[in-house]
Amino acid sequence: MEKHIQDIIGKEYKCLDHGFIRLVDVMGDDAAIVQAARVSYGQGTKTVNEDRGLIRYLMRHKHTSPFEMVELKFHVKLPIFIARQWIRHRTANVNEYSGRYSEMKDECYLPELEQIRLQSANNKQGRSEETLVQEEGNAVQNLLQDGQAGAFGDYKEMLEMGVAREVARINLPLSTYTEWYWKIDLHNLLHFIRLRLDSHAQYEIRVFAEAIAEMLKVIVPLTWEAFEDFTLYNVNFSRKEIAVLKEIITAMPNAEMLEKNGLKKGEAREFLEKLDKLK
Amino acid sequence: MEKHIQDIIGKEYKCLDHGFIRLVDVMGDDAAIVQAARVSYGQGTKTVNEDRGLIRYLMRHKHTSPFEMVELKFHVKLPIFIARQWIRHRTANVNEYSGRYSEMKDECYLPELEQIRLQSANNKQGRSEETLVQEEGNAVQNLLQDGQAGAFGDYKEMLEMGVAREVARINLPLSTYTEWYWKIDLHNLLHFIRLRLDSHAQYEIRVFAEAIAEMLKVIVPLTWEAFEDFTLYNVNFSRKEIAVLKEIITAMPNAEMLEKNGLKKGEAREFLEKLDKLK
Amino acid sequence: MEKHIQDIIGKEYKCLDHGFIRLVDVMGDDAAIVQAARVSYGQGTKTVNEDRGLIRYLMRHKHTSPFEMVELKFHVKLPIFIARQWIRHRTANVNEYSGRYSEMKDECYLPELEQIRLQSANNKQGRSEETLVQEEGNAVQNLLQDGQAGAFGDYKEMLEMGVAREVARINLPLSTYTEWYWKIDLHNLLHFIRLRLDSHAQYEIRVFAEAIAEMLKVIVPLTWEAFEDFTLYNVNFSRKEIAVLKEIITAMPNAEMLEKNGLKKGEAREFLEKLDKLK
Amino acid sequence: MEKHIQDIIGKEYKCLDHGFIRLVDVMGDDAAIVQAARVSYGQGTKTVNEDRGLIRYLMRHKHTSPFEMVELKFHVKLPIFIARQWIRHRTANVNEYSGRYSEMKDECYLPELEQIRLQSANNKQGRSEETLVQEEGNAVQNLLQDGQAGAFGDYKEMLEMGVAREVARINLPLSTYTEWYWKIDLHNLLHFIRLRLDSHAQYEIRVFAEAIAEMLKVIVPLTWEAFEDFTLYNVNFSRKEIAVLKEIITAMPNAEMLEKNGLKKGEAREFLEKLDKLK
Repeated sequence: MEKHIQDIIGKEYKCLDHGFIRLVDVMGDDAAIVQAARVSYGQGTKTVNEDRGLIRYLMRHKHTSPFEMVELKFHVKLPIFIARQWIRHRTANVNEYSGRYSEMKDECYLPELEQIRLQSANNKQGRSEETLVQEEGNAVQNLLQDGQAGAFGDYKEMLEMGVAREVARINLPLSTYTEWYWKIDLHNLLHFIRLRLDSHAQYEIRVFAEAIAEMLKVIVPLTWEAFEDFTLYNVNFSRKEIAVLKEIITAMPNAEMLEKNGLKKGEAREFLEKLDKLK
Repeated sequence: MEKHIQDIIGKEYKCLDHGFIRLVDVMGDDAAIVQAARVSYGQGTKTVNEDRGLIRYLMRHKHTSPFEMVELKFHVKLPIFIARQWIRHRTANVNEYSGRYSEMKDECYLPELEQIRLQSANNKQGRSEETLVQEEGNAVQNLLQDGQAGAFGDYKEMLEMGVAREVARINLPLSTYTEWYWKIDLHNLLHFIRLRLDSHAQYEIRVFAEAIAEMLKVIVPLTWEAFEDFTLYNVNFSRKEIAVLKEIITAMPNAEMLEKNGLKKGEAREFLEKLDKLK
Repeated sequence: MEKHIQDIIGKEYKCLDHGFIRLVDVMGDDAAIVQAARVSYGQGTKTVNEDRGLIRYLMRHKHTSPFEMVELKFHVKLPIFIARQWIRHRTANVNEYSGRYSEMKDECYLPELEQIRLQSANNKQGRSEETLVQEEGNAVQNLLQDGQAGAFGDYKEMLEMGVAREVARINLPLSTYTEWYWKIDLHNLLHFIRLRLDSHAQYEIRVFAEAIAEMLKVIVPLTWEAFEDFTLYNVNFSRKEIAVLKEIITAMPNAEMLEKNGLKKGEAREFLEKLDKLK
Repeated sequence: MEKHIQDIIGKEYKCLDHGFIRLVDVMGDDAAIVQAARVSYGQGTKTVNEDRGLIRYLMRHKHTSPFEMVELKFHVKLPIFIARQWIRHRTANVNEYSGRYSEMKDECYLPELEQIRLQSANNKQGRSEETLVQEEGNAVQNLLQDGQAGAFGDYKEMLEMGVAREVARINLPLSTYTEWYWKIDLHNLLHFIRLRLDSHAQYEIRVFAEAIAEMLKVIVPLTWEAFEDFTLYNVNFSRKEIAVLKEIITAMPNAEMLEKNGLKKGEAREFLEKLDKLK
């Protein structure tokens, strides 16, 4: 394993007030993706012989299987309401701390004032940009903190009475922290990142997605660059939108525009082909 | 679809105090399993021509793919701490009520006195057979009920202040009820049933597994019978245990024993072959 | 099940010279997708209350789980080299005819002259638009037909000598037809369709994808329309391409352009937001 | 990575006449399984503190998720008819050599005389123990070898005429070798091994399963031992068989029998509990 990857293994990336994510182990890197892709191409790959170009080609054309050849394992500490969103990504392996086997630790997520915001008016599933007035924000924090203290007080009281852990824990709040080991391949991890970095994702999971993104820039820099170009910062137009675009795109780009924006050879040709179809 | 299956579609099986499970739709039955298996055997199946025999053969030899050809969709209302165990079964499709989009309903699971038990001494993950003395049991119920009322009180207060739903809900207790649509194939459902009917499964999920079992007896009676015989009530002996069994099994069964216990033809032959290997 | 869906169950769609695909069973339709999505939205969905609008919204925002709530089962007869591409779609259930259990039927795929084409010069993985001259095309057909007859002649000779089927079949050609039952959910089926309708997919699998597309237009017409608009006929621009687009898009669309091309309300607003970001 | 694991990375295990399997990379070992399991048990694991004991406990009770935390990547060269059985294991990642991109190499599997056997009379899907008489065996080998040479002769002739590779290859025999990278977690790999080491598996895939078994003994020795004891060499009795066993088991094992056969503490207690239920 290369030194710069070795360096981030085990490193704790702090997330939220008590959470973290750390890379436990990784199998493979950009070179492993190229190696797997080349098996498919066999003898026939003389012309696609540059790693960056091949990775960009694979990403652009959604040849996803070589990206599945890299596997990453994380140790994550996160609030349960985030764990519930996270686990919806099914193509992954998980070992979670068990509240049936072990006593839950008295640690809950308390949002900063900055994150105690009003319900969004136009986005039914999210918070707006607007925070509560400071006084009300403080009141909410107090409500939350008292609720958490109360729930853990009751929990401990029940445990002391001898109540089974699996019963005593049923009233713990969704803000309680849990921990797990989580293992996933790079293709599915990028899918997770795309969904959870999105502005519609809940802030508290976005924080973890951002930490993973930081790691991926180190572990698979070529893949990350291609992912940004072709997936994260791409724009998708529907059939109807394309029909409108045809009317407002009045000129084809000249060579200088392509050059200046980094579109060369294959990528430039494919772009012009797309625009041609718009005409 | 046959009448007796049609009859249970939509029927609510009550589970716990406010929960339920109901079958929304089903594709296939015992005949569909046989039909799929026969594709594999092509022309060559003249001798295994009886449905029950074929299904028992498939189950006995763990030929699982024909059982995947039946698909079931359920609507389930269940406490969140059970939903967290349930979702670990990854080969399934889920649409869950969202506490980001919609206000959570004020309904929590309150265990009956009978289920408020002491921590098991020899089973780290479960409750014992022993309940608390009635007075203490009542105290626990009160603690739980007050905690639930308090958490929902705080929740509503925050919503009234305009706090975003996705923030306000973070202190709701794990005993809060949620709902989902859950779709799974029969092979994976039987795996779910085997794990969740087990005496080590938490009582509150076992209740749902039992309701599903009741439905399966109606929907796929031949499969259910084979499942009981070969999976649910089987006994598995390890290599070391087998070595001991060899010493304490002193006689081969006679024809009468086999007959009396329902072992005929293929099943009897395979049983004798197993015992032969023990000698 | 509605009449027009009932009508296509069992109907054989001919594919290639001896192949076919037929729908064996289906669970759910457009309404089932809406029903599952509404569980997520709970009480909060008063405003998104029109099925078509909701399905378009789900497709546009890649809320994929409600589409998983529809399940389809097919019976397919296809050449083995196509079966090998097909099976790469892992999220599906399969029961295939077994050459170990049963004798393989003497049926092979022989391409029409129209499909016996030259290797593409610029697409390493495909055939060009150019067919061989007729004489050479005929020669290829003869080579293929003689090869198939020879392989099956040898196969039968070995079977007559008593050779085990699983050994005798090892030299059968990849063009031999096999059969299977194949069950998949609608979300994964649409993914299959998108990849296999693509002009880079091999012609012989595209034929099957086209047959499935015909069925889906009947079974889930609203979903199919949304799929065409947002997935099949969409155009995706990379970050670099977007940078160029900014230079050649000189005007925002006016209301008439939007209206004429069918972009209303939510879709129009989201389109203008995308274009705004391009400025 | 430990030295003895490092030593087998890249090492080619020959399989059949031209095939091989080699370990490309591995993430984790017995310690990684224990580490993941301990996350679940949190503080509560003081008593299950020995790695071997914990791994045996996990295997015995089918707590499978910690075994998913080890991931292995292989490079395999194998005949296509075996690749078709292998790919049925869906929870894995694959990159295969493509006959559309690249010319197929002229290498086919030719069974040794020893493996050219008669169809089994009582096992519809397999070969018997009986080989053909030498003269006939030779005749079969000749038929196969000539068929392979003929098919590749035709293939090359078509390629020289300029026929697209994806068309020219359709008559290649199922015995043609292909190659792939294959990545899978340990839990699913053990499932593969159990099915493919079985005497009912086709000989030609068993050879690969045996090679993987050799590697696993080195990579995860504790897991392999537990797998042999509880899965590979276990014996499973159905409900009806148990009813018969009750009649022929006349005595409980004494302490000496348990001791001699390596059943101690937890395993001995669980065994006696099983036998108790038989009474």
